[in-house]
Order: sequence, then C-alpha cells, then structure tokens
Amino acid sequence: MTTAAEQAILDAHFMARALELARKGHYTTHPNPRVGCVVVRDGQIVGEGWHERAGEPHAEVHALRAAGELARGATAYVTLEPCSHHGRTPPCADALVNAGVARVVAAMRDPNPQVAGRGLQRLADAGIAVHSGVLEAEARKLNEGFLKRMELGLPFVRVKLAMSLDGRTAMENGESQWITGPAARSAVQRLRAQAAVVLTGADTVLADGARLTVRAEELGLDAAQTALAMSRPPLRVLIDGRLRVPLDAPFFRAGPALVATCVAVEEQYANGPECLIVPGDDGQVDLRQLLIELGNRGVNEVLVEAGPRLAGAFAQLGLVDEFVIFIAGKFLGSTARPLLDWPLAHMKDAPELKITEIRAVGDDWRVTAIALPPASV
Amino acid sequence: MTTAAEQAILDAHFMARALELARKGHYTTHPNPRVGCVVVRDGQIVGEGWHERAGEPHAEVHALRAAGELARGATAYVTLEPCSHHGRTPPCADALVNAGVARVVAAMRDPNPQVAGRGLQRLADAGIAVHSGVLEAEARKLNEGFLKRMELGLPFVRVKLAMSLDGRTAMENGESQWITGPAARSAVQRLRAQAAVVLTGADTVLADGARLTVRAEELGLDAAQTALAMSRPPLRVLIDGRLRVPLDAPFFRAGPALVATCVAVEEQYANGPECLIVPGDDGQVDLRQLLIELGNRGVNEVLVEAGPRLAGAFAQLGLVDEFVIFIAGKFLGSTARPLLDWPLAHMKDAPELKITEIRAVGDDWRVTAIALPPASV
Repeated sequence: MTTAAEQAILDAHFMARALELARKGHYTTHPNPRVGCVVVRDGQIVGEGWHERAGEPHAEVHALRAAGELARGATAYVTLEPCSHHGRTPPCADALVNAGVARVVAAMRDPNPQVAGRGLQRLADAGIAVHSGVLEAEARKLNEGFLKRMELGLPFVRVKLAMSLDGRTAMENGESQWITGPAARSAVQRLRAQAAVVLTGADTVLADGARLTVRAEELGLDAAQTALAMSRPPLRVLIDGRLRVPLDAPFFRAGPALVATCVAVEEQYANGPECLIVPGDDGQVDLRQLLIELGNRGVNEVLVEAGPRLAGAFAQLGLVDEFVIFIAGKFLGSTARPLLDWPLAHMKDAPELKITEIRAVGDDWRVTAIALPPASV
Repeated sequence: MTTAAEQAILDAHFMARALELARKGHYTTHPNPRVGCVVVRDGQIVGEGWHERAGEPHAEVHALRAAGELARGATAYVTLEPCSHHGRTPPCADALVNAGVARVVAAMRDPNPQVAGRGLQRLADAGIAVHSGVLEAEARKLNEGFLKRMELGLPFVRVKLAMSLDGRTAMENGESQWITGPAARSAVQRLRAQAAVVLTGADTVLADGARLTVRAEELGLDAAQTALAMSRPPLRVLIDGRLRVPLDAPFFRAGPALVATCVAVEEQYANGPECLIVPGDDGQVDLRQLLIELGNRGVNEVLVEAGPRLAGAFAQLGLVDEFVIFIAGKFLGSTARPLLDWPLAHMKDAPELKITEIRAVGDDWRVTAIALPPASV
C-alpha cells in the first residue's frame, strides 16, 4: 500500500512531467492557458498530451487518446483544473469521466469563471477521487498572463529593457543599437514570440525604424518549437496618439499591426492598419484603458518594448508586472539616457522591486524583477 | 606506480587545500601575499600551514613544523613559489631543503623581483623535484593586489558602488542612506577589512559623515576571522585637495587616517592626521600619483568608497581594476544621481567591462565587473 507521503512524491513527479508538456505550448495556446496532462497507471505513464492552440483538442483529450483502454482506473495529472463547459471543444471533465479514470490530480483550480471549481466538482460527482494543489506555484508561473486576465481582466505586462551597467539605454544623441549581444537579442525574440501582443511607441518606431517582428533564425529554438512560434506571431501594437508614424515606416511594412490612437476615425489612415481609439489626456493614449481593451480581446501577455518615456509611463502608472532588463558590460556615462523617464524627488517615493533572477545570457546578463505594491497601500 | 594523469589530479587536490589555507590570511598578510602550504606523504596530509601576518613565519615553516620528521621524502604544496631571500624571516626554500622534502609543487612563481624563480631554482639545485603552475589562476586571484604591486608598482583598485536597478546612487537632493540592506552592508565591511587602504573623498565625508571603519559585529565572520580582521584594520585615506574636512568630522574622530592633499605643509592641520602632498591640477589630488605613493608604501589592495565624482575620476583615468556594484531592487528615477560622473558623447567611447559574477546578497545583488582595456589600444 502506498503511504500518503509516498503518494505526494509520486504526484509531484508526474505533475512535473505534465508541466514540462504544458511548456511545449509556450508560443501557441493564447488566449487559452498552457496545459499539460499525463495519464498514469501502476506508476507508468500510459498517455501524454498538451494543448497546442485554441480550437484544437485540450491536453486531456490528447493524453486520454494516447492511453486508450489503459485510462480505465488510471490517474490523470493535469496542470489546470479540467474544463466543465462547452467551448470550442467539449468539456474535458466529461472526457475523463467517460474514459473511466479513477483519480484526477490538478496543479491548480481554473480561475476562469466558466470553470472555477466546477470541473473538479463534476469529476467528484462521478465518483472520481480529485486532488488539487500539486506544484501549484509552478503551474501559476506558467500561465501568469491567463491567470491575471481571468482574475483582473488585464493582461500580464512585461517590460523589456536593455541597459548598460550604469543604467543607461542610449547616448544623449540617441545612439543605442547593439548595446547587448546576439544571445540577449535571441532571448528578446523568444519574449516576443511568447507574448500575444508586442507593444511599442511612436518614438521608438520613428527613431530606430523598429519592426518588432519575430524572426525564425534568431529564436534559437529547435525546428519544432520554431515552427510553432512562427505559426502564431504576436500582434504588434503601436501606441501613436497623434498618428505620427507614416504608413511607409518599416513597422507597417513588416506585416499586420494595430494602432492605438486618440485620433478620431475620420482623420485616420486611408487603407491603413486597424486603429483602436483610446483617448487620453493631451493626445496621449490612456494606457490602462488600452490594456483593458487588450484584455477584452483575450490578450494574456503583453511585451512592452519602448523607449524610456513610454516604458516609464507604464511603470509610473503601476501597470507593469515584470521587468526583464538585459545588462551589458559597459558604461554609457552620466549624460546618457535614463532607463525610464520617471522623475522622483524623495527616496520614500522610490518604487520597490523584487529581483527574482539574474543570469548570464551570452556576454550580457538578464535581470528579472517584479514590481512590488507600494508599502503604504 | 602513479601515472602522470593521476599525479595531476592529486596535485590539484592538495593545491586546492593549500589555497583554502591561504585564504585564512585574507585579512592580515598584507603587504605580504596570502600563502598556504600542505605537506603530503603517501597521499596523506602530514602538515598544514598558512601565513598570518608580515614578520611572522611563512606558510611553509608552519607546515614543515607540523609535519616534523614526516616531511622527509614528502611533497610540499605551496600556493606561491617559496622565497629565496632573507627578509624578516629566513628563506623558505632553505627550510624545505633542510626538511628533506623530495618534491615541491607551487601554484605559481613569485613575481617579487627578490624571488622571481630563484626559490624554485634553489630547490632544484638541491635535488628536489619542482613543478609550478598548478591551479595558477586561483592562486593569482587570491593575491591580485600583491601581484599587481609587484608587476606594476601599483595597488589593485577595487571600486565599491551601491545603486538602484536603474543605476542611480542617490536622489537629486542627496538622500542616499540605506539603498541596500544589511547583508550587502556586511559584504562591504568584509571588502574594507580585506583592503590595505580604504579611500574616500571630501564630498562623501562632508555629506554623509562617513567614517569608513570596520565594525566587528557587522563583518558576519566567525570569531577567529573577526579577530584577525580587527587586528589589522585598513588605513583610511581621505582625498581632500584643499583640506575642506574639519578635524572634528566623524571620519577623523574614528581613528588614525592619512590625508592626501595639494595643500603645502605650512598650511596643513596643526596636530592633525598625517598628510601626504600629492599635487595635481586645480587643487585636485593627482590620483595616479597617489596610487604610486600607496604602492611604494606596500599597499596591495585599495577599496574606493566615494561618490560619483571621485569614483568617476578613478574610472575615467583607467585606474580601476574591479568594480563591485551592489544593486538594490528599486528605481530611484531619472532625476536621481548617476553611478559615475562621467560624461560620454559617443558609443565608441563607452568603456567595456566584463561582468564576471552576479550573485544574491540578502535582498540585494552584487555585480563584479573588471574593466577591459580599450579595444583600440
């Protein structure tokens, strides 16, 4: 007989594999969450599956199909509570019941209001043993965009920055290309590919001719993951309150894009890209409103790649969940441009961050930091 | 019979232990190098020793004493070529010969012109098998200050800085205390303790009431290492070209200090600290000349703890070997003070650094970066 302690170890072991499978959907599942599933019988994996893209079968369906008759009496490990509603595919809870599994272990409940415990309830009602909360922290991390959108209606906002060791992004005259090396640029390509939206501002597009595309040869992924990433490129969103960027800019010539602007319909581009009107003060797009709009469109993760002004505006409004800062081993000096345009008078106003990871990326280093809520709130 | 490949593994193993012993002298050996020694017979360590402070016995003497008669026919591992000259103690090469060791393995040659190969030669002449170059990189790292002084006549200069994640050291109004947390401050205490000289400028002493002392309770070391560190505190050196700091400043009240100044003897403090006249342009101390003076006084390692102006001046003159930058997880914003006062117009002028390590220190992070020579040189 397996003890409770032994069962906990086994559960973590198989859930880890389910999480590994879920990660295969890193570049393609949005607006759906990344989900993996493993079907286990007598300590052996008899079926595996992961969700590839919205509209296609969920992880459980793939895993149950692979297990076939062996699913009867088996344990299914799922990185997210099985769905209980009819979406574009039938409910996975029903599929598990029909397959005759004896036990279902979920890493976490699905915060989607259409599920929210009902999936697990459906299983329990059918006499299946259910357990939730195995490797939950890892499961939450995997889907922080989906979870934030379900819980707050807003996408997860990641701001990518590249700076010198003295915290500067460009020389005073604007020189800035190639602060960081090829490995860091490849990592940025992967950040773009995993996002549903890559967002930038008119300054960056005008000054640097930025296109913010995903380029297969720079992703540094194997053939299968490259193909997946390229099959679902992020939507490129330009914030251009006054429509200053001309239609022949490299950004527009590089493919479809969405423009967030304050300019009324009748004054917009003729035959230009889709425009989203998000009025704000002074002809500046209301950034929070824009994020709400993107959330409504099912955007889980937004990558902001912008200059100090726009990135600083997101930061000042408390809209940033995570900063990913690539640091190059050089000094650009005290007259160079700041990381963020964000004037602060007193130390007590200085926003706190938690640096969660620093690691080498080629000759550069990548800092990941999450914004902490102000201590006074 | 031991093969050459096996012997190389054994040599590295015992040299690693000798290096570990040498590190016990981290806070006390200067102006001498840190040295450890292990005497090995039939694969067993029969004697260990390390150098504690100048004027006291060298590592080899301690290890040979511990080994006693077992040293005859044994192998001695030393992290630095044994000395061949009569200094404050007799030559260690002679001690090894007299003890009858059969083989001596050194991590590296001693660049001290009084030794420089003569120690190994003396051993070889006596019929002892000698080998040099085992774990040499680690041995060089251990004594980078001593080596630089022997090779160039200059001390190794380490600049300690503390900054926010956006590269700022203080608010515009000067607020700067406690950017980093207690673990980082403890690490700074250890950097001070290992240096022969801690160097600062009048701005820092006037603005912050800085004392730059080593405090036993903040070192975070065990009792033995704390006692060693406190027995040999660094000399505190103030750069004050015009003698602006009053004698009742906390810096002077905290103990003996040396003042580097441009002011002539007759205009100096009455009954004040020792002054070293190092004239430069505009009443500014010539920093290179000051370092030469400190090198002449036997200073191996200098820790610079200063504001952006003085630290920037050292950096601009190419006098810095290593930057140790503590990064706090906060933003101080774009109007806050820069890491270094160092205006640069073009990217091609941006100095390159190699970040050799980043690691967590409490809630903060410590970046170690070495200055690289300009590509054009």
